[in-house]
Amino acid sequence: MESVYLNWAATSYRKPAVTLQAVNDYLQANHYQNSNRTLPGMAENGIAFKTRQILADFFGVNDPAQVLFTQNATMSLNMVLNGLLHRGDHVLTTSMEHNAVTRPLNLLAQQGIETTYLACTKTGQLQPEQLTAALRTTTKALVMTHTSNVTGTIMPIRECFALAKQHGLITILDASQTAGVLPINMADLNIDILIFTGHKSLLGLPGTGGFCLADGLAEQIEPWIVGGTGNASASLTQPDFLPDKFEPGTPNTLGILSLGTSVKAIEHLGLAKIARHEQALTAYFLAGLARLPVTVLGPQRADQMVPVISIVAPGFDVGELGGQLYQQFGIITRCGLHCAPLAHQTIGTFPTGSVRFSFGYQTTMAKLDYTLTALAQLLKGRAEWKDF
Amino acid sequence: MESVYLNWAATSYRKPAVTLQAVNDYLQANHYQNSNRTLPGMAENGIAFKTRQILADFFGVNDPAQVLFTQNATMSLNMVLNGLLHRGDHVLTTSMEHNAVTRPLNLLAQQGIETTYLACTKTGQLQPEQLTAALRTTTKALVMTHTSNVTGTIMPIRECFALAKQHGLITILDASQTAGVLPINMADLNIDILIFTGHKSLLGLPGTGGFCLADGLAEQIEPWIVGGTGNASASLTQPDFLPDKFEPGTPNTLGILSLGTSVKAIEHLGLAKIARHEQALTAYFLAGLARLPVTVLGPQRADQMVPVISIVAPGFDVGELGGQLYQQFGIITRCGLHCAPLAHQTIGTFPTGSVRFSFGYQTTMAKLDYTLTALAQLLKGRAEWKDF
Repeated sequence: MESVYLNWAATSYRKPAVTLQAVNDYLQANHYQNSNRTLPGMAENGIAFKTRQILADFFGVNDPAQVLFTQNATMSLNMVLNGLLHRGDHVLTTSMEHNAVTRPLNLLAQQGIETTYLACTKTGQLQPEQLTAALRTTTKALVMTHTSNVTGTIMPIRECFALAKQHGLITILDASQTAGVLPINMADLNIDILIFTGHKSLLGLPGTGGFCLADGLAEQIEPWIVGGTGNASASLTQPDFLPDKFEPGTPNTLGILSLGTSVKAIEHLGLAKIARHEQALTAYFLAGLARLPVTVLGPQRADQMVPVISIVAPGFDVGELGGQLYQQFGIITRCGLHCAPLAHQTIGTFPTGSVRFSFGYQTTMAKLDYTLTALAQLLKGRAEWKDF
Repeated sequence: MESVYLNWAATSYRKPAVTLQAVNDYLQANHYQNSNRTLPGMAENGIAFKTRQILADFFGVNDPAQVLFTQNATMSLNMVLNGLLHRGDHVLTTSMEHNAVTRPLNLLAQQGIETTYLACTKTGQLQPEQLTAALRTTTKALVMTHTSNVTGTIMPIRECFALAKQHGLITILDASQTAGVLPINMADLNIDILIFTGHKSLLGLPGTGGFCLADGLAEQIEPWIVGGTGNASASLTQPDFLPDKFEPGTPNTLGILSLGTSVKAIEHLGLAKIARHEQALTAYFLAGLARLPVTVLGPQRADQMVPVISIVAPGFDVGELGGQLYQQFGIITRCGLHCAPLAHQTIGTFPTGSVRFSFGYQTTMAKLDYTLTALAQLLKGRAEWKDF
């Protein structure tokens, strides 16, 4: 039985052929990894330098040095929130966030940093005006996800960030679910800090991610994780220049290579084309689900979503449904709370969660047909069992 | 001109053939990366689980869950020091540390955590008794490197950690330079927390590292970097169980695979055999240097060192000497302060630093002959120029 991978919101499968090739070439040649810290102009510097440039172009970052690499989006959020916020600061966020946002904020509460969670609707949608009502004199930043990782709901970032900038807030976008899915431009969307992961729709290897800064932001974030960077080594204080200020320790060079190669592949394929394909998949799957005895969560409109769809089915524990989909049909989904308990509270599926289907550029309509048929069989079987 | 890689203390070149093969196989098969968070028993869980077991056996960790993965040793040190130390605590360390130790400690000073740097000799050696003299009632931990990354000096860990335990301190070993070079057993050396990097002598890919905990230590370290782990997602607080407590966000699975495979390769080859080879290289190179007009730093005794040798040469700026070695002879060294300014202050080479040669299991005597000849030529040339 071949597997059907419908868990792209967790990570992309598989990576572009050019990326696999580039990674293998690098491993075979093994260009003296980490040698950036030895002599100028060697391979390692080149890889990070080029990937910074590629991502700066992709996201509209003014200076490639304002693209910083970390292990993942979680690390980026921890570094940014801890480096930016101080006792007495107030932060706005939403009730649809991932634990990568909520857990750092919850921990920062111990240091006297308060958070207001703007309440979203049962479909995970936010009214931008709520933001104004929640403002305090101490409000420093708005941090929010671009789309829910549970329901795929696209958040009104343009409106929210425009409002936030009117009130002098720093805007932080968690683009973990959207980088490589929707077009993102720092200036266009008023983004001060863009958090990205490399291994989801940017199609890089795991262990990659980072954050991008608008001009003037680097000065407002204090180093929080510190160590050697191979430059300005004489001081016991972290260098204040970029990228060293936020990149202590040995980077994941192979991962950074994969990320740069994959983003070039996305550009070559065309982000708009990928988005059209994924929106068509979403519409198709939603239409199929509408004929089945399941509850579909979220907005249920492909134009208001990324290709992430959560369902619950009467009579089925979500873990059991996901388990049966895998064991009987080889369909890989993700079940439970998706590291987003507040989102599940918002949409009414806490604490049991949902079964989530998520698609990528390599997902085909045929796989969705197979999945809809599998679901129909499982649900029919359960209905009969219940009758029995 | 073929390159001669003598910068193993920065990173190992190249990785074992079995590791390159395992990485490539994984990339080609691409076992649904990150799927550990979907369904039990899938590849990702397997990789991390197996590598934890391999490292637990290698370092003598009682429970594989007490092996935690991070991006690098720097990240491990930041997490451990910040999670362990509180206002009013006092820490002991040495004057031979890397900035991965000194910069986090220097930043912690802002939070009322004081550090005493035990002064080492001009050869980078420490008298264990100094530790006793520096103790305060508030001293909580001793953190020190296993060997200097500048001079290769092996520190008296056994004596220092035994003393530290007598006084109830928590012992933290920075094994960045020694994991895969010297035998390390947690219980044997009284190590409470072992910091390791994956990409140096453990022969893994960059972007790997972590820390190992003795029994009972996990409870004493608070989560400092937090986020989703795919388990216990309902809470806004980081899980208190291992490994989730210290592993938020998506791991570098491919890197972890490379690390496990490489450590098995080291075990297969035999750590003692590798150590003998590297000690022979060190002795040979030291003997060769003794015939040249250079100043060799450190103990100059192969049995007191790992294969890391720093020199300065009269009339040569270290950057120029390293640059000439590379440009004229293809020899890759590392020049400058090696992210260890206190160490260079200790041995009298601050702020100009040294040219560092470091070897690994694939370094040959022939390459050292070539390097010694190259050095002789460069130094002779400079001497003539000076006469002129």
